[in-house]
Amino acid sequence: MSRLDSFIRRLEAQRSCLGNAAQRTQKLAGVVLELGLGNGRTFDHLREICAGREIYVFDRQVAAHPDCIPAPNRMFLGDFTETLKEARAQLGDAAACLIHVDLGSGDTAASLALARCIAPDIAALMAPHAIVVSDQPIDEPSLKPLPLPEGVRPGRYFMGKKLA
Amino acid sequence: MSRLDSFIRRLEAQRSCLGNAAQRTQKLAGVVLELGLGNGRTFDHLREICAGREIYVFDRQVAAHPDCIPAPNRMFLGDFTETLKEARAQLGDAAACLIHVDLGSGDTAASLALARCIAPDIAALMAPHAIVVSDQPIDEPSLKPLPLPEGVRPGRYFMGKKLA
Repeated sequence: MSRLDSFIRRLEAQRSCLGNAAQRTQKLAGVVLELGLGNGRTFDHLREICAGREIYVFDRQVAAHPDCIPAPNRMFLGDFTETLKEARAQLGDAAACLIHVDLGSGDTAASLALARCIAPDIAALMAPHAIVVSDQPIDEPSLKPLPLPEGVRPGRYFMGKKLA
Repeated sequence: MSRLDSFIRRLEAQRSCLGNAAQRTQKLAGVVLELGLGNGRTFDHLREICAGREIYVFDRQVAAHPDCIPAPNRMFLGDFTETLKEARAQLGDAAACLIHVDLGSGDTAASLALARCIAPDIAALMAPHAIVVSDQPIDEPSLKPLPLPEGVRPGRYFMGKKLA
């Protein structure tokens, strides 16, 4: 499979998982968190499929398309290991109904290690039955792995649901 | 439509047009030219769908994934307005059966102007019945616009065939 094929599949998997998570969390209260703003494509998608929800975005710095930059009071800028703790203090634990984690840096080992490091804060921010969609496995005892939507190859994306 | 949706559609359109062009030019002799290596995704795709063909790549500099960097003697580095003339001298006019042009810089006016400027060299490099697939219109009297493959919105990509 060419890199073009593989990239298209990854984006389709991302869209499919986000759509699935938005639908499953429809009746939950809570905010949406996006870890990794990047160029803002999935932030733009989340504000479309989670219309009406407050969306908070986390990244080291802002490098998004000008149309896809959240309001300053909706951004946590800096190292995830610090900003997630700030978010827990500001928004409160269990504040989020949906969290999207897109760490993918190309450095697989570093992304995996970061995911392991921030997993407890991610789980703490999730309301009961909230869903996390992630490009890295988020292993936490309070999260139950969810089956992926049809057409998404296992390992390409990960979904987990917070236990009640 | 979100930027994620729009991006996926653009990549699918690209893949679909390239596949269509590769099939249509299957029986022609000639090399393949890729204008705009970028991260190397479509170069990787072209070497898969045009297996056995020599592929020459043009870009200002190499910024591709290490797996997707062509051999040094298959790269023309520098300004397209100069390297296309070098290619005409080195490969000869009418050397290519398929040309992929991916200028898309985000600056629409600049991309359009560049496409207009290099269109005569592109047309000169095309063998009779060769096909150009481009993210910008390539207007040249020796090119006949081709209908786009199913599912590709007009204006998203452009295809042209060199008259015999």
